[in-house]
Amino acid sequence: MLESYAAGRWYRAPDEGEPLLDAVTGDEVTRISSRGLDLGAMVRYAREVGGPAITALTFHQRAALLKNLAKHLTAQKDEFYALSLHTGATTRDTAVDVDGGIGTLFSFAGKGTRELPNDTIVLDGGVERLGKAGTFVGRHLYTSRPGVAVQINAFNFPVWGMLEKLAPAFLAGLPTIVKPASQTAYLTELVVRRIVESGILPEGALQLIAGRAGTLLDELTVQDSVAFTGSAHTAGILRRHPNIVDGGVVLGVEADSLNCSILGPDVRPEDPEFDLFVKGVVTEMTVKAGQKCTAIRRVLVPSALEDTVIEALGARLARIPVGDPRDPDVRMGALASLAQRDEVRKAIEALRASADVVIGDPDRVPERGAFLDPVVLRARAGAGEPHDVEPFGPVSTVLGYSGVDDAIALAARGKGSLAASVVTHDPAVARAVVLGLAPWHGRVLVLDRDDAGESTGHGSPLPVLVHGGPGRAGGGEELGGIRAVLHHMQRTAVQASPDLLTAVTGQWTTGAARNDEDVHPFRKSLATLRVGDTIRSATRTVSLADIQHFAEFTGDTFYAHTDADAAAKNPLFGGIVAHGYLVVSLAAGLFVEPSPGPVLANYGVDNLRFLTPVKAGDTIGVTLTVKQISPRTTADYGEVRWDAVVTNSDGAPVATYDVLTLVAK
Amino acid sequence: MLESYAAGRWYRAPDEGEPLLDAVTGDEVTRISSRGLDLGAMVRYAREVGGPAITALTFHQRAALLKNLAKHLTAQKDEFYALSLHTGATTRDTAVDVDGGIGTLFSFAGKGTRELPNDTIVLDGGVERLGKAGTFVGRHLYTSRPGVAVQINAFNFPVWGMLEKLAPAFLAGLPTIVKPASQTAYLTELVVRRIVESGILPEGALQLIAGRAGTLLDELTVQDSVAFTGSAHTAGILRRHPNIVDGGVVLGVEADSLNCSILGPDVRPEDPEFDLFVKGVVTEMTVKAGQKCTAIRRVLVPSALEDTVIEALGARLARIPVGDPRDPDVRMGALASLAQRDEVRKAIEALRASADVVIGDPDRVPERGAFLDPVVLRARAGAGEPHDVEPFGPVSTVLGYSGVDDAIALAARGKGSLAASVVTHDPAVARAVVLGLAPWHGRVLVLDRDDAGESTGHGSPLPVLVHGGPGRAGGGEELGGIRAVLHHMQRTAVQASPDLLTAVTGQWTTGAARNDEDVHPFRKSLATLRVGDTIRSATRTVSLADIQHFAEFTGDTFYAHTDADAAAKNPLFGGIVAHGYLVVSLAAGLFVEPSPGPVLANYGVDNLRFLTPVKAGDTIGVTLTVKQISPRTTADYGEVRWDAVVTNSDGAPVATYDVLTLVAK
Repeated sequence: MLESYAAGRWYRAPDEGEPLLDAVTGDEVTRISSRGLDLGAMVRYAREVGGPAITALTFHQRAALLKNLAKHLTAQKDEFYALSLHTGATTRDTAVDVDGGIGTLFSFAGKGTRELPNDTIVLDGGVERLGKAGTFVGRHLYTSRPGVAVQINAFNFPVWGMLEKLAPAFLAGLPTIVKPASQTAYLTELVVRRIVESGILPEGALQLIAGRAGTLLDELTVQDSVAFTGSAHTAGILRRHPNIVDGGVVLGVEADSLNCSILGPDVRPEDPEFDLFVKGVVTEMTVKAGQKCTAIRRVLVPSALEDTVIEALGARLARIPVGDPRDPDVRMGALASLAQRDEVRKAIEALRASADVVIGDPDRVPERGAFLDPVVLRARAGAGEPHDVEPFGPVSTVLGYSGVDDAIALAARGKGSLAASVVTHDPAVARAVVLGLAPWHGRVLVLDRDDAGESTGHGSPLPVLVHGGPGRAGGGEELGGIRAVLHHMQRTAVQASPDLLTAVTGQWTTGAARNDEDVHPFRKSLATLRVGDTIRSATRTVSLADIQHFAEFTGDTFYAHTDADAAAKNPLFGGIVAHGYLVVSLAAGLFVEPSPGPVLANYGVDNLRFLTPVKAGDTIGVTLTVKQISPRTTADYGEVRWDAVVTNSDGAPVATYDVLTLVAK
Repeated sequence: MLESYAAGRWYRAPDEGEPLLDAVTGDEVTRISSRGLDLGAMVRYAREVGGPAITALTFHQRAALLKNLAKHLTAQKDEFYALSLHTGATTRDTAVDVDGGIGTLFSFAGKGTRELPNDTIVLDGGVERLGKAGTFVGRHLYTSRPGVAVQINAFNFPVWGMLEKLAPAFLAGLPTIVKPASQTAYLTELVVRRIVESGILPEGALQLIAGRAGTLLDELTVQDSVAFTGSAHTAGILRRHPNIVDGGVVLGVEADSLNCSILGPDVRPEDPEFDLFVKGVVTEMTVKAGQKCTAIRRVLVPSALEDTVIEALGARLARIPVGDPRDPDVRMGALASLAQRDEVRKAIEALRASADVVIGDPDRVPERGAFLDPVVLRARAGAGEPHDVEPFGPVSTVLGYSGVDDAIALAARGKGSLAASVVTHDPAVARAVVLGLAPWHGRVLVLDRDDAGESTGHGSPLPVLVHGGPGRAGGGEELGGIRAVLHHMQRTAVQASPDLLTAVTGQWTTGAARNDEDVHPFRKSLATLRVGDTIRSATRTVSLADIQHFAEFTGDTFYAHTDADAAAKNPLFGGIVAHGYLVVSLAAGLFVEPSPGPVLANYGVDNLRFLTPVKAGDTIGVTLTVKQISPRTTADYGEVRWDAVVTNSDGAPVATYDVLTLVAK
């Protein structure tokens, strides 16, 4: 009997539950029930225990825990693979689920460390000056919601489905309650058990409902969110829930999707792209026995090539052994259940209203198990059903198109999909098709001879790219690196004086007070340095000889620095000007503190803009102010970002930029 | 009789319509009806005529039209002000509506030019390397939806409400159908009439429904969107529409909001912040007679100061003359209608369940017009209604709080609001309160003596900052500069080889082909330059003398460049290294083409990172490739962004950056 993990303990329902059957043998794997589970207590526990524990950590600390968790689960993989066989999955299928899920943890751990600050808020965009004098400024920031992330997952990816939603929610500071589909919940339960045992995540960060979610949505309020993967039908029920309609609970949906793959009009049967196309379709039909929301349901090919493509698909599908995934030669396993197979057969029947089965026999009945032949249909002219009916199994329909515009129009008849692919080696076709498909899709793959070797294929969502699609696909966005983290946070515009905006954001804002101290800030360690600490340099007059010498020394003899007559004709300068690189080099000479100290290196410069030309005789000075201090969790130094403003003797800004340094703790 | 503007012509309904009454005099201003209007034809016209005309323009061209429109409407302002008097608005109120709306057009025109490319797609984030060899990469882009933006607006801002939604939708490439609230639709109609007459926007870009929207939502499909401002009740009806629930129509809501203003615990009655607080509350109560979704409904003050604040509010409110806005001395006009006043009185009755009226008489009946006294209530301990009942008029409730955490908890009881303010001069209070309020708000204002002079106040949405709020406030986001434009577009992840990603995006991608030509790209004009054009420079060996000389010449004598023993101890360098600025200066010397030509200036550098130290004896070279070409619409030059990679003799990257130049057409 599967148990739920609720409010810090494992809960076993008092009833006998419902049986969960092996997809291949039909034997009972285990039983499931959530009867008596206190869902309100789970939500309160998440809010009161899990959330505060997570938000007490910085993004970098959360990322480090995700990395530890990924390592820990990697060490348990064999156990997950063994249990996954009951779902009908082949080893290759399980890799997508288990390794894909763990890989997603690693990816978010990496992104969280590299692309989020070592802080608990995220700044969004630059400072907006809201008044002429600069005393009133605005900036956007993201904060963690004091709520719960509920995930309701589909049966097809019991591990990936949980981890791909957990990683960004956890980074965002949210505790998660996961409700897997019953059919394959035993695998999710095992992974949750290993996560809980490890003690890596803070208590309350992850809870599990094994069984029905009952009145869970009734417990949610304005700061909570639900991420749902499954059918459009169920999505519609969720969307009508009073707490979604009127209660401010945020609902993300990833639902039905009639994804297409388009063979470019430029591709001839002898081109490598033709084989890549056929291989892609067959892979998507057979991985997970086609039970993937991103699988190719519609195969769009130039009308003249329909026969050739169908023949090639038939030949390739004939080489895919279907059977018990325990047999190492098998390339395609069973559907998740007999009920699921019935659903797929019903969908094939519906498709037959405007398409004919040309490969495979949907009615063939094997001795046991939820097996189904891969089935290819060919649409008749003007077919409607292939754009509306999603057979959630190894089934695709071939449709002919007359040209690029027709292919895009056919793709759009899916009313919004998760993923599309176009197989082409022609840049103009790639551009036209991708930009035509883009408004209808969350992801578009362009496959050709150049990227095929490294391509992850049509159907694989990647942690760094958004996953989701408009319209029928649900309108949600998951993954996509830090984008997915920010979806879980609240964006707020803050308006304040520069001093108080600095206090709120922790980042020095132009116009805020500068701390002029006797000690040069380069002499201060990371621990003693403060945002706002400032160097106001001495000044230096730039002579014509300096400019000439710099030109000669560096070889940068651009006429604006060397030829008075030509420079006079330049519409921006009207005479000899100092090199921009000379200005920033001299500025460094003005602000540097030469002796060894905590500042280890200048590792970069951001947003350098030359605003006013420096002419011979101009005197420049530089003001350098600590803008942001970012200690690293795993090193004995951190990054310090300095605001640099070079001014001339009129006080006009000559150059502005951020200097990036590494400073020892 | 008001007319609708539909499918290219003005439409007058055949019936007598319903009367619209002057808020002050009760006289009939005009009549309104949309009977017989062909809503399906309007939607088709928008999709087939308006959309294609807008998306044929680049963002910069669209921005230029918005700017022209803003100028044109500025010239018609007197007419708008005169008509606005019928709505009960004072001149100050009308400025918020009319000047605020026109200012929003100007703001989006500016942002569109400065922050969007002169193109029809927007790239989002950097290139993601998806395979080790770099042959498979990903990137996100935004494309225009081939749909319609429907806006359903509230009665309180008949001009701003339309323009603030029109500007970002138009920039995003969407045609708009506007449906103003009937009460004040005559002002919207006049502005639409002036817009249509001007011919500035492409035909089909803007249509108007004067009267009921009837079955409009039934006409919408997956690429269409609805932006609604109004009551949570109506929002709930919209959210239940089948095309929203199941049809993929995107709905944005800006609804009820029980905004609060918090007097910081640090503020004493004698501080300037105390007066700013009182003034802010009174302003929000009286501008538009409190009929603003952002107005302050809850006045949160330290319990000890409740009496003092109420006294100050009373004194200030007593100095606000209420009456006919045609009288120049009047500071607060009428509510929009008698029905609206009935609503507000009902709300006050509801509030009285846990609060007492301490200022104003809600039942006083003036001779004529929809006038209402400003009313302040004082909440009793544990009051519930002030957090749930929104009196949409000149009404606020004072609540005492016991400390910062209590103030935040009280604010959160609003279940999500558009705007909050905190009046404080204490950095710690500002940080604690703002970060505590942020998850519950779309915008938070920090007001103090430093920003008060330029502050736009608690209640003013600004075009550059997001407007919207979580939960009860609707969960939508409008404005916020380019954020609002992107909300109207579809984000799509594209996966491809670097060559085909370059073709799709128009921006050169690392790993894509470089065009090595005989002619130096600096000799090519903007018209002949191509993305991918490349300079591979000669090489130069950096000597110790070069480093020493550069140190001496620039004054940058940092020990890592000058002191071998000390440099050897630096954990990152382990010996003397060349200055980063020396490296980029020498690189410029290597790639420059000195004679006058189309390249006018190097105006900046982005994302400079020093990746490998350059030591004495190292030989460096630079490869410079055209990454992006952005012609300006209004100048005879444009921006060219170059990808720069400096490598050493091992081929390792020493520095990478983008060089930004201006190049003549």
